[in-house]
Amino acid sequence: MSHTQSLTRYTASFIDELVQAGITDMVVSPGSRSTPMAILMAEHPSINLYMNVDERSAGFFALGLAKASKNPVVLLCTSGTAAANYFPAIVEANLSRVPLIVLTADRPHELRNVGAPQAIDQIHLFGSHVKWFNEMALPENDESMISYVKAAANRAVGAAKSNPSGPVHLNFPFREPLIPDLSGEVFESVNGTDKKSMPPKVMNGSLHLDDTQLDELFSIFSEHEKGIIVCGPMDAAAGPIIELAERLGYPVLPDPLSQLRSCSEDVNQEILLEGYDAFLRTEAVKQELKPDVVLRLGAMPVSKSAMLFMKNLKSAQHVVVDSGSGWRDPSHISTTMVYSDENSFCQSLIKRAGDEKRNTGWLKMWKEINSITIKNMSQIELAEDMDEGKVFFEMANNLPENSGIFVGNSMPIRDIDSFFFNNKKNIHVMANRGANGIDGVVSSALGASAHIHPMHLVIGDLSFFHDMNGLLAANMNKLNLTIIILNNNGGGIFSYLPQAEKAPHFELLFGTPTNLDFKHTAALYGADYILAENWDDFNSALINHAENDGLKIIEVQTNREKNVQVHRELWNTVSREIEDYLKGDK
Amino acid sequence: MSHTQSLTRYTASFIDELVQAGITDMVVSPGSRSTPMAILMAEHPSINLYMNVDERSAGFFALGLAKASKNPVVLLCTSGTAAANYFPAIVEANLSRVPLIVLTADRPHELRNVGAPQAIDQIHLFGSHVKWFNEMALPENDESMISYVKAAANRAVGAAKSNPSGPVHLNFPFREPLIPDLSGEVFESVNGTDKKSMPPKVMNGSLHLDDTQLDELFSIFSEHEKGIIVCGPMDAAAGPIIELAERLGYPVLPDPLSQLRSCSEDVNQEILLEGYDAFLRTEAVKQELKPDVVLRLGAMPVSKSAMLFMKNLKSAQHVVVDSGSGWRDPSHISTTMVYSDENSFCQSLIKRAGDEKRNTGWLKMWKEINSITIKNMSQIELAEDMDEGKVFFEMANNLPENSGIFVGNSMPIRDIDSFFFNNKKNIHVMANRGANGIDGVVSSALGASAHIHPMHLVIGDLSFFHDMNGLLAANMNKLNLTIIILNNNGGGIFSYLPQAEKAPHFELLFGTPTNLDFKHTAALYGADYILAENWDDFNSALINHAENDGLKIIEVQTNREKNVQVHRELWNTVSREIEDYLKGDK
Repeated sequence: MSHTQSLTRYTASFIDELVQAGITDMVVSPGSRSTPMAILMAEHPSINLYMNVDERSAGFFALGLAKASKNPVVLLCTSGTAAANYFPAIVEANLSRVPLIVLTADRPHELRNVGAPQAIDQIHLFGSHVKWFNEMALPENDESMISYVKAAANRAVGAAKSNPSGPVHLNFPFREPLIPDLSGEVFESVNGTDKKSMPPKVMNGSLHLDDTQLDELFSIFSEHEKGIIVCGPMDAAAGPIIELAERLGYPVLPDPLSQLRSCSEDVNQEILLEGYDAFLRTEAVKQELKPDVVLRLGAMPVSKSAMLFMKNLKSAQHVVVDSGSGWRDPSHISTTMVYSDENSFCQSLIKRAGDEKRNTGWLKMWKEINSITIKNMSQIELAEDMDEGKVFFEMANNLPENSGIFVGNSMPIRDIDSFFFNNKKNIHVMANRGANGIDGVVSSALGASAHIHPMHLVIGDLSFFHDMNGLLAANMNKLNLTIIILNNNGGGIFSYLPQAEKAPHFELLFGTPTNLDFKHTAALYGADYILAENWDDFNSALINHAENDGLKIIEVQTNREKNVQVHRELWNTVSREIEDYLKGDK
Repeated sequence: MSHTQSLTRYTASFIDELVQAGITDMVVSPGSRSTPMAILMAEHPSINLYMNVDERSAGFFALGLAKASKNPVVLLCTSGTAAANYFPAIVEANLSRVPLIVLTADRPHELRNVGAPQAIDQIHLFGSHVKWFNEMALPENDESMISYVKAAANRAVGAAKSNPSGPVHLNFPFREPLIPDLSGEVFESVNGTDKKSMPPKVMNGSLHLDDTQLDELFSIFSEHEKGIIVCGPMDAAAGPIIELAERLGYPVLPDPLSQLRSCSEDVNQEILLEGYDAFLRTEAVKQELKPDVVLRLGAMPVSKSAMLFMKNLKSAQHVVVDSGSGWRDPSHISTTMVYSDENSFCQSLIKRAGDEKRNTGWLKMWKEINSITIKNMSQIELAEDMDEGKVFFEMANNLPENSGIFVGNSMPIRDIDSFFFNNKKNIHVMANRGANGIDGVVSSALGASAHIHPMHLVIGDLSFFHDMNGLLAANMNKLNLTIIILNNNGGGIFSYLPQAEKAPHFELLFGTPTNLDFKHTAALYGADYILAENWDDFNSALINHAENDGLKIIEVQTNREKNVQVHRELWNTVSREIEDYLKGDK
């Protein structure tokens, strides 16, 4: 019994301590070696336990939960390749700074590397892609080992949350028998038996600049009227950024994942110019609107035209603000790399800028060009055929306030960049933009759906295919999600790349049509399914689904070539109208 | 044009050299950064190119191809999480010694770790789970760099094949533009332009013992009449093993993956005792049949009763023969670890043993116990209900010669161990027994189906679910496979573990019923589908399918509890009859 007592108390102490440290969501995949952890998680009254059979999907599901809840999520699987299946989600979590606590059960040391079943080398399994790896001790019951395992729980939560957030990995060897003893009250926090135990709490600080550093930065902004603020994917508060932009007279270019395009009622969005991806394609604009200062916050924006625009500003000051310690500068153009909490950074500069808003011709011209752009891009409304871009236009119109939209990589993220205009609906827009993979997106959206209602996923057919297994979690965990599949039967994004025109073997290697009829997928997972053949179908399904529970799929069949053509025509119109404006302006 | 010329010649030289080194099968997943490799592979006249959209499935598909062809297979994907999806298959390939050459395209150095899209840290991405990692140079066109890249191709093939075989990983940075120029004749082996180039060929030796070592070993076997030979999963030739067994008078316990149970006509299988998993559960047998010597070849056998039997032979000599350099001894019982090619090892000992077969009471008793066992286990034939074990009994009866059976982990591998008896049909039995994962099995079987006809997969419902995405490759690459799903709606194997009786939250954490109706999966992938409700259905579908092309699914719905009960009853009968035999014998 001593073995079982040690197993139970050690494991329960660890799990209970995770809960004490604020963790509530745990995602478990079935397996044998992980039995003590799994049973104790299921037994704990404060844990939301989600089951997910496919560990790859489980990893991305946890990622979505953590993104939406802004809190670390625990993953648990058994030993062997199960753990290796987490790898894509871990890589994504590390790059997109999402806190995960990955627990892998393992064989004890004597069964490693000796041909025992389901034993793989799990030491540093995820290499450089986790923030912290710890090989845990075998369960023991003496007080110092209980203190040790409680400290490890707190340390794991602290490490996952500390800026930049990310995944940590703890490997737990367990010996048989694996069943814990639940006959007593196993969780100290629940039965309150162990008041003497004082496990270490972790307090993570955030980065702040000192006055000298802030003065130096402020002088750059005060000296130059021609500046812009580029906001990539981030979770920083909108208020201070907009206030700083107004004081400096710098227009803000808000990435769809900056959470600035869809605000609550009391936010003034006038200085947020969401049409930049279209208007920065125009040569005349790039010539006319050359800033002397670029202030960039958040991760890299999705817009390629914005990237190219910034890259060609050879003599501009380029200030990158990063609340973690990354190096977000793929074009090698930064002149100052600022490691500071965004909020504190903005507040400190606002104080220095005083109460006056800077109103300049510079700002006015940017705003007018954006107005022309949005007016023209809004013509997507008139598209009668099923167009990928119009999907987002319609969603912005029809979704209720506080909805969520998860967008797939490849085309959907680009389409939402083009066609999701400023609004006051407080719609939360999410995507996996760490490594920009097409994998795991269904699961991430399902994870997010546990915290954001109603939740929607807009995804291409290849990306949907890649993570169809993720759909099982919907029924298993009673989740609600509307999935809009933009089905162009294959790799739509490649039609925008040089490969489309020049590559031999294009359809074989890049187009890769799957010819799958997703109504069968819907039937397999018991999802409501509609093939939206016109916009009335689409909108009524959208509105209907937001009010109903369960898994719902709206398929929109589009044409790769036509999609490219429609978008190019819109960009050309924008370009012509802006050129006319700029000529008239001179 | 210099960039494109370098890109083309460097990449073409590498691919052409892989072909020169004997590689023909290459598995490609769509992506942009990998464009130069993919296009040149598609262009090469001697390459069988397989497309597979989901990289996780692609990895296991390549594993199946390599297992069946006994030749390294090339994998290619783009940068980012795509590569991380290979991880489970790579872990499996490393443990099961299957040669893979993993090529990942990467961003060039200036785009790494600076927030560029689809850029992850791919250096040593697979850690300790590959035999060799090489970060390649950017494409260049001068002769020394062409020699370098050709050498790398030969080295990769050599390293993947050298004993123990396994995966190697080469990471290729590519700069844009990525389209190679196919206007000239790009492959030297095809156009014969470069006779002067003499890239290094690799000749891998194999391990052989010297005479002193062999004499020492032989003395162990000649001194002891009571010995057994345990053959785990392996690809060694049957002839020398059987001949050695006959000379030594040692019965052979052949794992279903030893390829000994299903031989060609001219092999005498009398000394191969395939019922050991059942009869070694009987206490009386374990007392009576205590060998002084155990000679073990191949990987660890699947049978748990055989493992426990060997573990309890405290005073036996335990000789483990390994053609690679592993340590296949999870029970820590080996007394001699022999690193030698199995064939050479057997031949050398046969020479020492002379022409006489050793006929002992020891061997006779083993044979008789096996006969009693097989007679009783064959009663599975009478099972009227759909039973998982009977599936293999029927398959052995009904499959044509030279068929293939791929078995899933968890229950199918254990059922084939119990119910696949010696036969002369030369049926090739395969499974992923490196890490024993339930992942990737569908893809591995599809890969194998490219080389073995007709091919069958027997798989549980959870394992089938885990890799349903793998099914897309069937249509995309015009493959033929019959899948038999043993559907007990969840994790059947857990019903055999202690968790089944004692674990709280059993159904939630271990049973995990998915409630999926796989006829929808069949419809999605255009597979023929039948739910076999009786044995006539099953057998006629089996026979019909072996004669027809395409993807075919036979679903067999079984009951977890009943399955356990039927098997326990059979084992009990075996046990009783053997006890009677042993009493009578004394």
